[in-house]
Amino acid sequence: MLHKNRLFTPGPTPLLPAAQTAMASFTAHHRTADFRALFQRVLADMKEFIGTKNDVLVLACSGTGVMEASVSNLTSPGDKVLVLTAGKFGERWTGLAKAFGCHVEVLEVPYGQTFSLDDVRARLNHQVRAVFVQATESSTGARHDIEGIAKIVRAHGDETLLVVDAITGLGTTHLDVDGWGVDVIIGGSQKALMMPPGLAYCAVSERAWKRMDQTLSPRYYFDLRKERKSAAKGETAYTPATSLFAALGAALEFVRGMGNGDLAKGREELVNNAEICAEMTRAGAKALGLKLYAASPAAALTAICAPDGIDSSKIVKEFREGFDAVVANGQGEMKGKLFRIAHIGYYDYLDTIGILGALEHVLAKVTGKSIEYGAAVRAAQEVYARTQSSKQQLVGA
Amino acid sequence: MLHKNRLFTPGPTPLLPAAQTAMASFTAHHRTADFRALFQRVLADMKEFIGTKNDVLVLACSGTGVMEASVSNLTSPGDKVLVLTAGKFGERWTGLAKAFGCHVEVLEVPYGQTFSLDDVRARLNHQVRAVFVQATESSTGARHDIEGIAKIVRAHGDETLLVVDAITGLGTTHLDVDGWGVDVIIGGSQKALMMPPGLAYCAVSERAWKRMDQTLSPRYYFDLRKERKSAAKGETAYTPATSLFAALGAALEFVRGMGNGDLAKGREELVNNAEICAEMTRAGAKALGLKLYAASPAAALTAICAPDGIDSSKIVKEFREGFDAVVANGQGEMKGKLFRIAHIGYYDYLDTIGILGALEHVLAKVTGKSIEYGAAVRAAQEVYARTQSSKQQLVGA
Repeated sequence: MLHKNRLFTPGPTPLLPAAQTAMASFTAHHRTADFRALFQRVLADMKEFIGTKNDVLVLACSGTGVMEASVSNLTSPGDKVLVLTAGKFGERWTGLAKAFGCHVEVLEVPYGQTFSLDDVRARLNHQVRAVFVQATESSTGARHDIEGIAKIVRAHGDETLLVVDAITGLGTTHLDVDGWGVDVIIGGSQKALMMPPGLAYCAVSERAWKRMDQTLSPRYYFDLRKERKSAAKGETAYTPATSLFAALGAALEFVRGMGNGDLAKGREELVNNAEICAEMTRAGAKALGLKLYAASPAAALTAICAPDGIDSSKIVKEFREGFDAVVANGQGEMKGKLFRIAHIGYYDYLDTIGILGALEHVLAKVTGKSIEYGAAVRAAQEVYARTQSSKQQLVGA
Repeated sequence: MLHKNRLFTPGPTPLLPAAQTAMASFTAHHRTADFRALFQRVLADMKEFIGTKNDVLVLACSGTGVMEASVSNLTSPGDKVLVLTAGKFGERWTGLAKAFGCHVEVLEVPYGQTFSLDDVRARLNHQVRAVFVQATESSTGARHDIEGIAKIVRAHGDETLLVVDAITGLGTTHLDVDGWGVDVIIGGSQKALMMPPGLAYCAVSERAWKRMDQTLSPRYYFDLRKERKSAAKGETAYTPATSLFAALGAALEFVRGMGNGDLAKGREELVNNAEICAEMTRAGAKALGLKLYAASPAAALTAICAPDGIDSSKIVKEFREGFDAVVANGQGEMKGKLFRIAHIGYYDYLDTIGILGALEHVLAKVTGKSIEYGAAVRAAQEVYARTQSSKQQLVGA
């Protein structure tokens, strides 16, 4: 059969056609009034999208680049920092903080788990200059309790900063950045904003800006204060990825449209969409007797354990060969043990039902067992029907 | 939830991304070597796609334009012609032939039916200068027996021409144009070739070219002999729709890729794809207790009767409002009585399973009855699994 290339990976995610068109047709030079107008509109809209009054910066790099920026701008060599890690991206925080000479305390829980708030509280003290954590751990599909963690960090006053990698979290989970007092929140373009990789962004609190006056770690390309100064003049410190800015502008307009003209509402719709796709997928997987990997699953993606005795690489391969559908394998120590289906950004009902239908064929093929066709789909449809009827009740109420 | 615009109409059909890109980036002037090279490559490829050694012409118009061209170029006022009609597009042949002053004999069967070959044979005589028919009647989803009809027409020798509107038939049904002796076969860009409307094409037999030396109906823009002369020089008689030619070139490359470098094989793959999507859809509809409208259903589209007492307009509306999925209502006298789901061109397994899942919700909503979720999907999955296992047996054989 004909196959469409179907991305179900937790980034890159399916592209918004309006973003593709905007990107393909954009030609303006970056030191012109045209680009400045786009740039300033995008930065203002990004504040609404993230839900913050803090300054937002958009850089030409991957999400890891802005993770590095938050380490290099907020710490000095020898600073004590606390990394909360529950997977491959948590480990990246440790690697980054060590690379910049921090004294790294690690609160580690097994892959697939999340942190107990008591453990976080116990590991925190006034020497800890910053806490680094993920909103959602993309390698395991786990959701962390950022609100709870933020309460603990904020209780320490201003000397401890909270830095949240929300690269797969923004637009898939509710985050009250300013209300909870998150100092740096980080996102990437190839996630809920439905565009290709190449841009990453962060919102930075006043507390964090003040910290940068004292920190000594080396930085140049990722010098956030320099970017902030440039942004105030409507430009970037170095050459911006102009066509990606055009795509970002179009994506933000699309999200605004989802909220009937209100970007913050549009973001909540996007989060809600991911929640429904994820709940459908979890119900579908369970109906097939599959186990979910994460104890507190994120809406960004669903990590599903391969059946006993089956290498998940075979599942990933079968999705690709049979349907040109790209799902993600486990990462790091979980490679071969689980597979991950994303719900970040541009997915709808048909995508979700379609990939669950495909999953049934894939399972039949790799296990050699007969599958009751339609079982996963039906469970997902029941979730969908319930969400729609509760929506109607809300409308009628 | 987020909705992607999902076309399930029998034209326009979903766009091939490579065709969109080609179209968006093409800028060449039409009287240049660049365009001539594209034009000549497209015409040669179109012969392979259609499966004919006859000259192929591609015109800037809708399919109806080339239907008109076949009437105006092949008949003179007062000529007796036979129209085989089983729906709205059959009626279009009658309207066109009358507009050009033909003496029109009509063999009409009810909507949803097809012709008995005995009836066709009985209505044919040596006064009939041309027979006009559809390969697939898009208004009812019926497939006509072009091979059987062609045998009857060809048995009359060269004085009766056979003109086949295969606008939704090309790329969805097997047609041996030269082997069966079809004189003019007609197609349109917004169908199996996965691109927007704006181009239509035909392949014309030597018998038909000879006829044009004698016919007297007025024609100018649609003068096929003029187009043929221009095409021999690598150009069109009037301004071609250049960007659509670029899209067509990209679509033909995609079809060639489906055949691993062989365009004719790629077309058969495309036909096979539509056949599988259609069989899945028919099985799904039947599993929900719905009746198929056409006695001999085409792979191009599936026309499904609305349940008793339900206006199909409600079904069409619910698909659009609930899923942004555009399915077609009945046309003409069948409006409100049936709905049509297309399989022409760029559809895959996920699309087909997705629309059947959506159909279950739509039916639950419009009938107010509870639906066994997954029933249509499961029936479609069983069809898919059977086609895949028979494919493997073929490969293994």
